[in-house]
This record gives sequence, structure tokens and C-alpha cells, in this order.
Amino acid sequence: MAAIRTHAVRFEEIDAAGLVFFARFFFWCHESMERFFDPIPGGYVDLITRRRVGFPAVHAESDWKSPLRYGDATCIETSVANIGTTSVTFRFVFTNEKTGAHVATIHQVVTCVDLDTVKKQPLPADCRALLEAHRSA
Amino acid sequence: MAAIRTHAVRFEEIDAAGLVFFARFFFWCHESMERFFDPIPGGYVDLITRRRVGFPAVHAESDWKSPLRYGDATCIETSVANIGTTSVTFRFVFTNEKTGAHVATIHQVVTCVDLDTVKKQPLPADCRALLEAHRSA
Amino acid sequence: MAAIRTHAVRFEEIDAAGLVFFARFFFWCHESMERFFDPIPGGYVDLITRRRVGFPAVHAESDWKSPLRYGDATCIETSVANIGTTSVTFRFVFTNEKTGAHVATIHQVVTCVDLDTVKKQPLPADCRALLEAHRSA
Amino acid sequence: MAAIRTHAVRFEEIDAAGLVFFARFFFWCHESMERFFDPIPGGYVDLITRRRVGFPAVHAESDWKSPLRYGDATCIETSVANIGTTSVTFRFVFTNEKTGAHVATIHQVVTCVDLDTVKKQPLPADCRALLEAHRSA
Repeated sequence: MAAIRTHAVRFEEIDAAGLVFFARFFFWCHESMERFFDPIPGGYVDLITRRRVGFPAVHAESDWKSPLRYGDATCIETSVANIGTTSVTFRFVFTNEKTGAHVATIHQVVTCVDLDTVKKQPLPADCRALLEAHRSA
Repeated sequence: MAAIRTHAVRFEEIDAAGLVFFARFFFWCHESMERFFDPIPGGYVDLITRRRVGFPAVHAESDWKSPLRYGDATCIETSVANIGTTSVTFRFVFTNEKTGAHVATIHQVVTCVDLDTVKKQPLPADCRALLEAHRSA
Repeated sequence: MAAIRTHAVRFEEIDAAGLVFFARFFFWCHESMERFFDPIPGGYVDLITRRRVGFPAVHAESDWKSPLRYGDATCIETSVANIGTTSVTFRFVFTNEKTGAHVATIHQVVTCVDLDTVKKQPLPADCRALLEAHRSA
Repeated sequence: MAAIRTHAVRFEEIDAAGLVFFARFFFWCHESMERFFDPIPGGYVDLITRRRVGFPAVHAESDWKSPLRYGDATCIETSVANIGTTSVTFRFVFTNEKTGAHVATIHQVVTCVDLDTVKKQPLPADCRALLEAHRSA
């Protein structure tokens, strides 16, 4: 089951070519991942600031299919493509809210780390349960 | 004596109106302030990470006179308009490198704080000496 | 009557000192201004892309009173402090959503321009009516 | 032959976990690509603004190997992994300037488009010649 949210392109996300700058998609991925963890008590904020559990990106594969412009909004569908012992592969599918066109797909592998040492550690049980519930079909 | 550097407008600093987004100027101010502290051993990085001395902005006054576009570069002249016990007023004057046109002037007051407590503290002696040497004419 | 919205600090809006980077506030001001124009048919997007009416910043005065950290959210109260023939002064008051603490106040003067020439022009009637309805008390 | 440049991590490129935010790497890739085109008369700016030739990203594969912190600088080695009729694969290798550690490798495929139509077009001859001269070993 995927988590779905919408992002309206912001005025300053446009570049000198008049299109959304490709790097913005990774900010949207991260926001979507933050929102994904909302059902955990305290959410992503609590993981980072109190539990000191982080999820730095170690790998990403991205395909852009059609551009976004100012005035466009994108639906972002977040699901979980793979779960390892210490890592997770998120899948983010972006579509144009108005036209339904496929905008981009990004697979992002993050590793669970102890933020004080930046060393890998097993996924906490509550995170794992949430992730399992959102596996891609 | 002002410290001078040049910034070429980056592709993604343009907004949906085709002009440099006004908030970018504050990033350039901060970079200029970081460079300003280069003569201190270890520079701004050492102040922040080892000495735990920070300079958060408490006040800013900004005037924008002419727009910048992709392909423009701006000269940034950094000087010190005022020095208090715990605060400094930097003055950043932006001109268009090609035309010489006045682009913007920003006065920014920063307070010296202990980053562990975020409490005000007197300016360290080495910072004060550097600041004195760059007072605005 | 002020328009009010809330912004939860994003993971990447934090700087190397562990506080929200001061320049982020200007992004939030601009987003608030965009939302302010929502009652106009087509909103800010239509002004920019179809009507070619822009509102570049010409002046800003900002006071920061208390820092924001990751996990904080800020209420942003947008009102109109002054209306001229071709310019508007917006007032943005930021408070900490949890503590109610005053975080920052930013007054920003924007000029109404024809985006094709970047020349000043009188405020369109529908914009003026909306602005009048949100004058600061 | 690779083009090499260095980027010192900026104060505001750090995230709430105290590490460089992963999306920043894509800004650095784009800056490196802009610099790559410097030998073309007028550079990337002229391609975008006068010749209306753009290079939007259509695919990227990224591996992050070790984190960057405030105070670090990264060497960015830009080379060309593949050249097609209408597309190019750039390879960006990031190393830690001080330690020599491998920080990240990003392969990015960009398509040459006419910016007025956002339709694919063959690489201009001068761009192709420059790209050929920088093929990865």
C-alpha cells in the first residue's frame, strides 16, 4: 500500500531553462520519506533528534519522463520496494496531477545508521513493521 | 577596507519569473561572511565546529535595485558597518559585474553566540581585530 | 485580517550550527505571499505565467528573535502593512507553534511589474482589493 | 581526460543529521556540467539563453560511499562515460579532498533538447567535440 501526497511546484524550484530543476525531486523524495514515518510516535523528527536513528542515502536510480513547470503539481506515491536487515529501498513514483503523465520514478536505498557513529545498524522493529505494511505491489 | 568576491549566477538560482530569486542574496551574504573569516586560523569552519562560536542573524535590511539574470555575475563587497560588544553589522554591496549597475545592498546584524547554549557572548579578540580592519569607509 | 499558515521545519533547512538557516525565512515569506494570492482566480501562478504580473522584492527588513530547530513548526501570519500605487508592504510574523514564542518579523516591500519589461506598473484591481482586505490591524 | 574542480561544503548544505544532504550532490553535478561546457564560446549560459539548447536529466545512478561534513571539501572529477546521438552520460566522481576517501559516484544521462519545444535533438557539433575529448578512460 503506497502513501500518496501532492506537491505544488514552488516558484523557486524552476531553473534558468524554465523547468523544475532535476535535483528538487530528491528534496521531494526526502519529504515523502519523512511523511512516511509519521505513524511512528514522534515521527522522523524523533528518530533523528532523540533516538539518533538516521537513514542516509547510499544508492539511487532515477528516471525522468516528462518535465514539470511552474503551475504544475505532482502526485508522489511512496512505497517500499525492498527491505533488508539494515537497509530499505523506497520507490517514489511522480505523476503530473493534472494530466496523469508519468513524470519520474526514483528508487532510493537508504541505510539505517546510528547517527552518533554513522555506523550501520538493524532497522528498529517499529520502523520495520511500518515498512512491511507499505511494500510495493 | 572591503573584501571583494564575485559570484556567477547559477542555473538553479533563477525563479519562475526568470530572475534571480531574492532569497538567494542571503546565501551569498553568508558565503561572503564565511570567506570574510578566512584569515582567522581554521576560518569560519573552526569557529563553528571546534570553538562553537556562531553568528546568527538578528536583523537585516535589504534593498534591491536591479535584477540579475542567468549569465550575470555579481561583485560582492563585504565590509563592517558597526561593531558592538556582542554584535556586528556587515554591509554587503552587490554590483553587476558587467554593467557596474548597483544590484542590492544588504546590512546584516549578527550576534556572537556560544553555539552550545545559543546565548550572546562578547566577540572573540581575533574576530574583533579582523572586523576592525574591515570597517566601511 | 491576516492569513495564517503553518510550516514544519524541513530536515534540510537546518544548517551546520544546528539551527534553521536564516535565509530559509525568505522562502517561507514567498510561499506565504503565493498562498496569499490564492483567492485571485488562477492564483499567483496565473499572475506570473499568463498575466505576466510579477512582484519582485525591492526592500526587506527582518528581525529574528528566537531560533528554530528541526522538529519545530512555525505559524506564519501574513498581512498587508501598506499599499501604494505600484508597491505593497507585506508583514510576516513568525511564531513558534508549540511555545508561542516570537521567532521573527519580516516586512517586505514588493513592486508590481510587467514581467516582460520588468517595469513598474499599478497594482491590478483584483490584487488591490484582496490586499485591502488583509491590511494589518 | 577528466575535468577536476573542488567544492568546499557550505554552511547551509548540512542537514539536521549533521551531514551533507544527499540532494546537494546533484547541484554539484550540475555546476560541474556547467563548468564542463566553459570551453564552448559563451559556455553553458549561451547554450541555454541564446542557442536554446538544454540538457535535462533523463536518468541518474548514484552511489554514496562516505559522508561529508561541514569543513570538508570534495574533489569532483567530471568525465564522459558515453555519447549517443542525442544524449550524453556524464560521470562524476567525488572524493574527500583531505582523506582521499571515495565519497560518491554519479552517472547522469542528459538529453539534448531544443528548449523552445523540449524535444530531443542531435548534439551540436561543438558540444560533441568537447564531449569526445573528455571520455572516461
